[in-house]
Amino acid sequence: MEKPQDKNWRSKLHEIIYEADTPAGKLFDVVLLIVILASILLVMLESVKSIDSKYHDILNISEWIITVLFTVEYIARVITVKKPLKYIFSFYGIIDFLSTVPKYISLIVGGVHALAALRALRLLRIFRILKLARYLGASLRLMSALRASRAKISVFLFAVIIVSIILGTIMYLVEGEENGFSNIPKSVYWCIVTLTTVGFGDIAPQTPLGQFIASLVMILGYGIIAVPTGIVSAEYTSQSRKDEKEDKIKKPLHLNTQVCVNCSTEKHRDDAEFCYHCGHKLNDE
Amino acid sequence: MEKPQDKNWRSKLHEIIYEADTPAGKLFDVVLLIVILASILLVMLESVKSIDSKYHDILNISEWIITVLFTVEYIARVITVKKPLKYIFSFYGIIDFLSTVPKYISLIVGGVHALAALRALRLLRIFRILKLARYLGASLRLMSALRASRAKISVFLFAVIIVSIILGTIMYLVEGEENGFSNIPKSVYWCIVTLTTVGFGDIAPQTPLGQFIASLVMILGYGIIAVPTGIVSAEYTSQSRKDEKEDKIKKPLHLNTQVCVNCSTEKHRDDAEFCYHCGHKLNDE
Amino acid sequence: MEKPQDKNWRSKLHEIIYEADTPAGKLFDVVLLIVILASILLVMLESVKSIDSKYHDILNISEWIITVLFTVEYIARVITVKKPLKYIFSFYGIIDFLSTVPKYISLIVGGVHALAALRALRLLRIFRILKLARYLGASLRLMSALRASRAKISVFLFAVIIVSIILGTIMYLVEGEENGFSNIPKSVYWCIVTLTTVGFGDIAPQTPLGQFIASLVMILGYGIIAVPTGIVSAEYTSQSRKDEKEDKIKKPLHLNTQVCVNCSTEKHRDDAEFCYHCGHKLNDE
Amino acid sequence: MEKPQDKNWRSKLHEIIYEADTPAGKLFDVVLLIVILASILLVMLESVKSIDSKYHDILNISEWIITVLFTVEYIARVITVKKPLKYIFSFYGIIDFLSTVPKYISLIVGGVHALAALRALRLLRIFRILKLARYLGASLRLMSALRASRAKISVFLFAVIIVSIILGTIMYLVEGEENGFSNIPKSVYWCIVTLTTVGFGDIAPQTPLGQFIASLVMILGYGIIAVPTGIVSAEYTSQSRKDEKEDKIKKPLHLNTQVCVNCSTEKHRDDAEFCYHCGHKLNDE
Repeated sequence: MEKPQDKNWRSKLHEIIYEADTPAGKLFDVVLLIVILASILLVMLESVKSIDSKYHDILNISEWIITVLFTVEYIARVITVKKPLKYIFSFYGIIDFLSTVPKYISLIVGGVHALAALRALRLLRIFRILKLARYLGASLRLMSALRASRAKISVFLFAVIIVSIILGTIMYLVEGEENGFSNIPKSVYWCIVTLTTVGFGDIAPQTPLGQFIASLVMILGYGIIAVPTGIVSAEYTSQSRKDEKEDKIKKPLHLNTQVCVNCSTEKHRDDAEFCYHCGHKLNDE
Repeated sequence: MEKPQDKNWRSKLHEIIYEADTPAGKLFDVVLLIVILASILLVMLESVKSIDSKYHDILNISEWIITVLFTVEYIARVITVKKPLKYIFSFYGIIDFLSTVPKYISLIVGGVHALAALRALRLLRIFRILKLARYLGASLRLMSALRASRAKISVFLFAVIIVSIILGTIMYLVEGEENGFSNIPKSVYWCIVTLTTVGFGDIAPQTPLGQFIASLVMILGYGIIAVPTGIVSAEYTSQSRKDEKEDKIKKPLHLNTQVCVNCSTEKHRDDAEFCYHCGHKLNDE
Repeated sequence: MEKPQDKNWRSKLHEIIYEADTPAGKLFDVVLLIVILASILLVMLESVKSIDSKYHDILNISEWIITVLFTVEYIARVITVKKPLKYIFSFYGIIDFLSTVPKYISLIVGGVHALAALRALRLLRIFRILKLARYLGASLRLMSALRASRAKISVFLFAVIIVSIILGTIMYLVEGEENGFSNIPKSVYWCIVTLTTVGFGDIAPQTPLGQFIASLVMILGYGIIAVPTGIVSAEYTSQSRKDEKEDKIKKPLHLNTQVCVNCSTEKHRDDAEFCYHCGHKLNDE
Repeated sequence: MEKPQDKNWRSKLHEIIYEADTPAGKLFDVVLLIVILASILLVMLESVKSIDSKYHDILNISEWIITVLFTVEYIARVITVKKPLKYIFSFYGIIDFLSTVPKYISLIVGGVHALAALRALRLLRIFRILKLARYLGASLRLMSALRASRAKISVFLFAVIIVSIILGTIMYLVEGEENGFSNIPKSVYWCIVTLTTVGFGDIAPQTPLGQFIASLVMILGYGIIAVPTGIVSAEYTSQSRKDEKEDKIKKPLHLNTQVCVNCSTEKHRDDAEFCYHCGHKLNDE
């Protein structure tokens, strides 16, 4: 059933949809980026009552156009991959499905609000286009610095939460319900608001003792904000120094955006002819 | 009175309760962690009026179960240590006692709120389980960086407090009682709220001059937040560099979680057969 | 028509207006700085109702004096440059024009508020005077550190915006219109307010679930504030180290503030006799 | 008139008051520290209406006791210095005078509030006692790091102020008087509140466009907070590295707290016998 010509047609579509090295692939990605951004804008505008009541029809039609476009893209993606099930149950496959289907359901059930919000998941699709990889080097280094300091930041955040629970309980006892600290979870919430220097002000200590303790909390928060900063900063510096020695950063940029037709593995070397993961021939014929 | 078999039974219990190297010891710690977290959740939920009125009986029974569990654990700890008094008056001994006893007192006196809050101290028991020590290396380096910058951060915080008192007094004179700066302590409180960039907004300057001074305070606060960050960052970097040279970090991880039956000293070397503090035989027979 | 004497007069005026190396040029810049600051103060005071109604005449006359001074300066700049059109359509030429013309238009049309605000553009003229360049070395290094970390900070800010949109949508669903999260854009706005630890408090979560998510947002914001700081810090450190080796910093200071009469190119070397851009003779005769 | 015995008596008092090396001098400083802290507490408590009305007499008497103590100290300082005028018109001399005299004036004029606040200046006297110099090394390094980054922080703060004025004017035009941005200075104030991530919330944008611009301002503020931190951090790191090489830090600690009787110069070397400034014999006879 699969004629060579047919395969050729599918492999070309695969190249356009999954890769960003050819002009057609780049164009596809740029168009997709615009459509995604437009669809997110739509979801946002629909939530604004005054706009929705005025331009309901325009918004609805635009939404249908985008839904159809996404549907076409979804089908194309399923067709062009050799193992469609692998794509369908991959992270991006599920997001693509969830961000397309709510509009169709709304036809049957009618105006389910929570479902409509699922469309916000479309935003996550942007990450895929980042294959455009303009800032790949920069984000790689950032990522590895964050990964290296993950354990320390976890310890730090754990300490922040414990401190918040203890101080929150104290504030609950000191201020009490009449000043807005109506229960311990709310007190802990206030404590996190204060420690992180956000300070909404919806709850604020009223008693002198409460304000004194709050002052201590704030100065503590002000002092410990230095800790994660110091960690990331030091980690990033050491990362940079290592990179300078090994010139690691330039190498990732030589990886291109080809995706294997067989196993969907990404990031092949520029001079690769076969997939490094499954050995399938990469299509640059 | 103490037969060898009895001693053996006690030393085995000691191993389970106080150490985390054997499977039984690890299991004990994990169960304890869950019970502690459950007990903290209980204290929190009880403070929420709407939940307490609905599920009062369930909460009360759960509280009794946890109290009994803690009582059993407390007694077991006292029995298995050779010098029970040392444990009872140690930091964790007192916390264990204070976090268990309020429920019993409530039987006699009835609903003393402040006593109930004592149970929040249970949270401090978590630190003990951290013997699990997953992130021991990370927190050790963090601690030593903080300890090294302690003196400088003290100087810094002292300067922040002095600046707050001076600026608070000025704001009290400028804004006065009619704008919420009703006395100097409150003004100083506002100043700390502002300097640390928390900014509740419960008190805010209303006069042009007050807003001008507030602007200066904020820019000052924005500028000096750099100081503790810079200190910790620099200290942490130098700490890392030192560690890289001396490989200090890996060594603490070789210390295990055994606790001497005789003197409760912790952190013995893996190959230790006798307590390095009192010379008592460590029980790995 | 252009006699040598006339040319000499123009070239001297050019030196005074466009450069800051001669005593006359420095004096001109200082006077200009004072006039600009005075004009900005005027715009500010005019916007304060109580002051404007009291001292309307004084403010109006001062405004006219400054407008006339700016007009004279503008004409002088046009006359002394060889290619006036190039100046007129340059960045500073347009700002000079826009910050002068509103007062004249107000004569014809009368009190157009938005136009009056155009005068705030005068502030941008300050950047020109920074040719005085006291802190040139300091700002140069700052600039190059920022430029070097531009890509990484873009990635970071892009991530912040995506996180804000996702979390904003979630908060919109959780809190709903009755708690102030009246639409998704507003929710995203709240999310940015919270992530950046600003925390106005005009919108604040009211439901327990909303406060729980808000706590996560805040701790996240508190954790990731470390990222840009770490980047700039590391970049700045490596910049400093590089500078120490190459002594790059002192060299830019040898560039002077001369401006070519022909093509308005700036930053010539101290020993330059001809413009490095168009080859025109520089006027230090 | 000046007998040798008299001189000896004065030089001994000088040693006690101005120095902190002898036991008597240390005791004097500790007592002084307590009195100063007590006097600041007094000023604070007096400003609290509810406390002042209850304990007016006790506060008033305590205030008189402290005033008399300060008067005695002031006279003693004037007598024991060889050049009293130099002390009287020195920074600390003026502060000592201003923090003592208001109580006497209140006898004549009666309850001048603003004068009473002058007593807050007493706080500045604490700096003198810091001769105790526990953290001298730490603060010295901090100071030199701040001094080194002064120029760059000035450039940065200048940029923050310019950005605030421009954005403040834009917000004034966008939001207008009806949303609390009643004039440009107030708008600029709001902009500083937001840029520094303080966020009082007394003024908050209401229009969608205003909230959009506010979001940009906040993200900008979040991004640029990294700049001063990066500067101080880098400066501090390089300072530490320099210090490690030169061992500069330990040397300042060898300077003692002796003060020359003749010219009031401080910080003499431990082995100094004559004032390094005026050549007068230092009194350790």
